Amino acid sequence: MGKKAIIAIDAMGGDNAPFEIVKGSIEAVNQKDIEIILVGDESKIARELKSYSYDPSKLSIVHASEVIDMEEAPVIAIRKKKDSSMVVGLNLLKDKKADAFISAGSTGALLAGGTFLVGRIKGVERPALAPLIPNKTGFSLLIDCGANMDSKPSYLSQFAQMGSIYMENIMGVSNPKVGLINVGVEKEKGNQLTKEAYSLMEELDINFMGNIEARDIPYGRADVIVCDAFTGNIILKYTEGFGLSLFDIIKEELMGSTLSKIGALLSKSAFKRIKHRFDYTEYGGAPMLGLQGLVIKAHGSSNSKAIFSAICQGIQFKEQKIVEQIEQRINQ
Amino acid sequence: MGKKAIIAIDAMGGDNAPFEIVKGSIEAVNQKDIEIILVGDESKIARELKSYSYDPSKLSIVHASEVIDMEEAPVIAIRKKKDSSMVVGLNLLKDKKADAFISAGSTGALLAGGTFLVGRIKGVERPALAPLIPNKTGFSLLIDCGANMDSKPSYLSQFAQMGSIYMENIMGVSNPKVGLINVGVEKEKGNQLTKEAYSLMEELDINFMGNIEARDIPYGRADVIVCDAFTGNIILKYTEGFGLSLFDIIKEELMGSTLSKIGALLSKSAFKRIKHRFDYTEYGGAPMLGLQGLVIKAHGSSNSKAIFSAICQGIQFKEQKIVEQIEQRINQ
Repeated sequence: MGKKAIIAIDAMGGDNAPFEIVKGSIEAVNQKDIEIILVGDESKIARELKSYSYDPSKLSIVHASEVIDMEEAPVIAIRKKKDSSMVVGLNLLKDKKADAFISAGSTGALLAGGTFLVGRIKGVERPALAPLIPNKTGFSLLIDCGANMDSKPSYLSQFAQMGSIYMENIMGVSNPKVGLINVGVEKEKGNQLTKEAYSLMEELDINFMGNIEARDIPYGRADVIVCDAFTGNIILKYTEGFGLSLFDIIKEELMGSTLSKIGALLSKSAFKRIKHRFDYTEYGGAPMLGLQGLVIKAHGSSNSKAIFSAICQGIQFKEQKIVEQIEQRINQ
Repeated sequence: MGKKAIIAIDAMGGDNAPFEIVKGSIEAVNQKDIEIILVGDESKIARELKSYSYDPSKLSIVHASEVIDMEEAPVIAIRKKKDSSMVVGLNLLKDKKADAFISAGSTGALLAGGTFLVGRIKGVERPALAPLIPNKTGFSLLIDCGANMDSKPSYLSQFAQMGSIYMENIMGVSNPKVGLINVGVEKEKGNQLTKEAYSLMEELDINFMGNIEARDIPYGRADVIVCDAFTGNIILKYTEGFGLSLFDIIKEELMGSTLSKIGALLSKSAFKRIKHRFDYTEYGGAPMLGLQGLVIKAHGSSNSKAIFSAICQGIQFKEQKIVEQIEQRINQ
């Protein structure tokens, strides 16, 4: 591959495919020095592309006749649907025909496909899925939220390294603070896994701040939050459910009286700003780290802006030579 | 012990001791057919009691010369401070001189003391701490948030039974829905622990609804939420931190413009109602289940209302014969 980043994109994945996917891709093609490969139903993609003007040498289509549905069993879907947009796209990464692959499709299938189809970086024990979660001052990287349900201390130690590299090089956080999620801040706290992981993480060449408690997450005390995938999944889904339900409750109570209804009306712009602070589209998607190339899980409801952001992550990933950085750090 | 519930209370524990503790106790003495034992510094308690009129035959003081501080290492504190209000109170439970012991002091010390000093119910493998956490429609019992950091499937299965009995008999939830916290609703999802726990829980004589995801917690889909203590601790502390930080953000943004400031003023009563929906004082405290008697961890900032509610939990515990119910269910 040359110097220019080549980003493959699942044109069929997510709630708004292919319209928003193609739209975001075109915006990137017109603004960035990259090459985009749209993977999916050729005729559908071509129809979308007609609405835009762009440099055709920077964009190509790789046809895929199938689509993996959200409801399909991930491992079976990846094995059976060999001509799906997801499998074809992941193979582009495997064959070094792309630097990154972005999909807003099934998380489970993408995790399974990433693990089975794309090779791991030498020395990496398990790839990790690392979404950005909102906090009071910005976003933190929550690593791992992937498929490894029973983690080993050495996995967590590698997650800390990969997460730190990603936040520093892709998200521009200098010397990112790395915290281990635990039930107390003292070193001796926690379960067998976190106790052993703590000892390993102390030895790393990262800005390890020790344990952090879950109550510190929303305050953004750590830039990289390390945990096993079971815990990560709980935190991620609780964040989603808690936020939604709390806004439901606020809405319910504000609509409870005429006075507070007027109050809500006057506060509309404030609530808009609050919503903006939780806007994931600014950050594109969740990287899957540890593979030969970047796999990005974009939110299922991604709009063009989210896709554009994910593409920018992919460009950075190539430019900053993240694969090489991870390989070097893990094996040193 | 007779038919009347005898509730021992740590008069020295928590931020508002002894004032709010004594006040709540007097309210209970004046309204309920019970006996209260206040444990702690006799002269300080006696001084507080002077402000109230009550039937002295229903209230006694057991002197304890020491207090366990929040900062002390729990196990050491319990071992060393044998004349602390907490140790003396727990020994009243152990010696069957009380049916319940309530403390707003150090959670760690209470867990350690509960485990070491008060006997377990026959057949119970591990006692569990089970706080009530707020949701959109009320509260759910989160079991376990205690000290067992590495849980076994059989512990979780027992937590499900004890939690179900508590919610039904003490909190008045008929046929409580019991959910196992997991990363997906399907039976085969999760880590080794949850997969094996699921199989055990299916066999129980409870209303087991299967796995629930963390996003369902805030909607109150389960009355009893079963998990290992590591996960429970994460959920509990995240709930606290997330709620606080979100209200901080809302406040910050509402104060951002004159218009929204007026809006906030008009919405004041709505926000008061929201706060009330999260008011833990209605529910007293977190029961520690599986012991020969009830240990209740009251919130550190408990006021008299919270203490009163905790006392009512203790009365119910005695009346509903919870120790006997747990013993029977666990060993059937």
